[in-house]
Amino acid sequence: MKITDWKKFLLPYENAVEELKVKFKSIRSELLALGEYSPIEFVTGRIKKVSSILEKAKKLEVNEDEIDEKIEDIAGIRIMCQFVEDIYTVVDYIRERDGRDMDIFYEKDYINNYKESGYRSYHVVIKYPIQTAMGPKVILAEIQIRTLAMNFWGTIEHSLKYKYKHNIPQHINERLKKAADAAFQLDQEMSEIRHEIRNAQKMFEVKSNV
Amino acid sequence: MKITDWKKFLLPYENAVEELKVKFKSIRSELLALGEYSPIEFVTGRIKKVSSILEKAKKLEVNEDEIDEKIEDIAGIRIMCQFVEDIYTVVDYIRERDGRDMDIFYEKDYINNYKESGYRSYHVVIKYPIQTAMGPKVILAEIQIRTLAMNFWGTIEHSLKYKYKHNIPQHINERLKKAADAAFQLDQEMSEIRHEIRNAQKMFEVKSNV
Amino acid sequence: MKITDWKKFLLPYENAVEELKVKFKSIRSELLALGEYSPIEFVTGRIKKVSSILEKAKKLEVNEDEIDEKIEDIAGIRIMCQFVEDIYTVVDYIRERDGRDMDIFYEKDYINNYKESGYRSYHVVIKYPIQTAMGPKVILAEIQIRTLAMNFWGTIEHSLKYKYKHNIPQHINERLKKAADAAFQLDQEMSEIRHEIRNAQKMFEVKSNV
Amino acid sequence: MKITDWKKFLLPYENAVEELKVKFKSIRSELLALGEYSPIEFVTGRIKKVSSILEKAKKLEVNEDEIDEKIEDIAGIRIMCQFVEDIYTVVDYIRERDGRDMDIFYEKDYINNYKESGYRSYHVVIKYPIQTAMGPKVILAEIQIRTLAMNFWGTIEHSLKYKYKHNIPQHINERLKKAADAAFQLDQEMSEIRHEIRNAQKMFEVKSNV
Repeated sequence: MKITDWKKFLLPYENAVEELKVKFKSIRSELLALGEYSPIEFVTGRIKKVSSILEKAKKLEVNEDEIDEKIEDIAGIRIMCQFVEDIYTVVDYIRERDGRDMDIFYEKDYINNYKESGYRSYHVVIKYPIQTAMGPKVILAEIQIRTLAMNFWGTIEHSLKYKYKHNIPQHINERLKKAADAAFQLDQEMSEIRHEIRNAQKMFEVKSNV
Repeated sequence: MKITDWKKFLLPYENAVEELKVKFKSIRSELLALGEYSPIEFVTGRIKKVSSILEKAKKLEVNEDEIDEKIEDIAGIRIMCQFVEDIYTVVDYIRERDGRDMDIFYEKDYINNYKESGYRSYHVVIKYPIQTAMGPKVILAEIQIRTLAMNFWGTIEHSLKYKYKHNIPQHINERLKKAADAAFQLDQEMSEIRHEIRNAQKMFEVKSNV
Repeated sequence: MKITDWKKFLLPYENAVEELKVKFKSIRSELLALGEYSPIEFVTGRIKKVSSILEKAKKLEVNEDEIDEKIEDIAGIRIMCQFVEDIYTVVDYIRERDGRDMDIFYEKDYINNYKESGYRSYHVVIKYPIQTAMGPKVILAEIQIRTLAMNFWGTIEHSLKYKYKHNIPQHINERLKKAADAAFQLDQEMSEIRHEIRNAQKMFEVKSNV
Repeated sequence: MKITDWKKFLLPYENAVEELKVKFKSIRSELLALGEYSPIEFVTGRIKKVSSILEKAKKLEVNEDEIDEKIEDIAGIRIMCQFVEDIYTVVDYIRERDGRDMDIFYEKDYINNYKESGYRSYHVVIKYPIQTAMGPKVILAEIQIRTLAMNFWGTIEHSLKYKYKHNIPQHINERLKKAADAAFQLDQEMSEIRHEIRNAQKMFEVKSNV
């Protein structure tokens, strides 16, 4: 079966992105309202362009009638964190919801196992039930969780991939890897500061209990 | 058990209002994207103020530990329609979702059975499951469905009730009823036009088939 | 000179609509923050569709190179009020800004002089200076100020005009006029209540001063 | 003269922040609509908290009646760029508007002359005319223009300053400087890639002209 009406096909994905954005933003506002630290800095979402869906389907040898089952990032949510450690806290939040308002399909840790290109991010692919004007449907959505530095690098890599149609010249690839190293370095320095803050807090608590 | 932390108590209600607003707005954008008529004109939501919750609890003789079970409009969603007929289409949409992402607790038709004051609206009270930082919770939410004219009148009545602390003087009450009649008249004239449009469309379809 | 790039042509109008929406919404939030009554209930804005601009230009015999000078409602702002009296308060606000961030081009009072069709609204056409990526420009914008009932009626009339391509059948026109009467009646009843509230407030003030 | 009503005092600043956000966001949407590169990635705005205003006034020995003339960042706009080079393009945009809808008061280049702490950003302080319910007023606003990496570092430094009440311990200060170096390194690597892209584009253009 060919997808004749892409607008109609994409509607449940659009609704899902809107709902998921609200849900993850609520975690942040909830924690801030309680005076607690939020591991979520901000949340964005997007629908994959039809041209990109078709390109990916071709590359992965996916038939058009299997697109909704095999292309996992038509609905995409991106959660940005300040520190690498926050990423795993967010993953835990998602795991706690597993079987409730979303089902985890699979996870991929591209942080501990970063890609050769330098790409780092944590991916959680979920099955998400959505109600539409045409009835209920379960769709796949990909949640990418990353630091601001990972996101910065990822945005640039994405532009380059798009510009060079996935054939980035070797010398630019090397530059990209250097930039990935710099981004990684920044995240590590930031994590160190984070530990300093924590240690400082502990010292203070010990003192104030004396 | 007294509610010691109202901010915390209200958080799941706030999340629910945000999610429900997105869900009902999606129905509208979905139908418009498909080139179809949307019975939903716009959607608003609000959390009841703590002072109003306590006032209502006192009036209904509800203990503070029963507030979440017995005050049904802490989370409130309002759906505005152009025509009276659209209200029932929206109610049907909600009924179709019953047992899916929301459960209908009960319905009240204040349109066919309008209140003595002149108040007209269709109420659907639902049970809505919500995920919070403190775990899952099912809350009550009230969905009010009404025309623009009903809403206009309702807004004025609400201000007057607030101003006069529910003791609106008799002569103002009479004025309010006259205004309710005028609002009702406006809705009826509009419904007539709606039928004219429909009939005109049918005539046109017959002709064009010749 | 023909308009070859409509996207480019419309950009300053889009910016103007965004800026004007923020400015009129600010009046409301400012008054509410000060604990005062806001005559502005809500504000919407829109850019006229290219097809409608061309249609209007043809009807008014306006050349394409005069469109920016002679079509006054390419940028449109609509301000909704609860009571008819509020409309004139909003007009006063605009007059106070005349010569500051906007210049009044002309005004039309379709409330005291309503159109034969039943259309009622207050129009203020302004000249508005806007900064664009291509430099500064002064554009025309039309501000429509109306009650909720006037707006409701206007929306329906607009749909009918669109459906019948400005040739609304006679019997529907009559129905429309009846609906306009009902809308007018509603506004009048509401104004009466408004006076009652004011009088009640005065009585209360007198008493509380004793 | 003491500021007795802070809410009232801050209203024109709030309006200014809303207007300025719209204006800088419009530059981005305008350029994207024209298919051009936008040097603006995203825009945020905030009003300084009353406690922070008073703290700063005390530190700078500013009397309460001079606060509006001497505290320059009560209204704050932050513009985020992908590349360091983009920052100067944005500054040029602001300079072009000088004398139109805003007046440049002064500029400070904390990028070429970064602070000892490691802080980098470009600051433009403007005078901005605003219309309020109480009449017209000219206020000061600070526009900070920075890369995503500068912003990331700045956010962390701000939290630490707040936590340690401006007395950040020496060893944490050293960590912060290391993080600033890493952020600077990331920006430099990214600029290099940017040049590569440009050069690649030029080579391509030359080839395609053959």
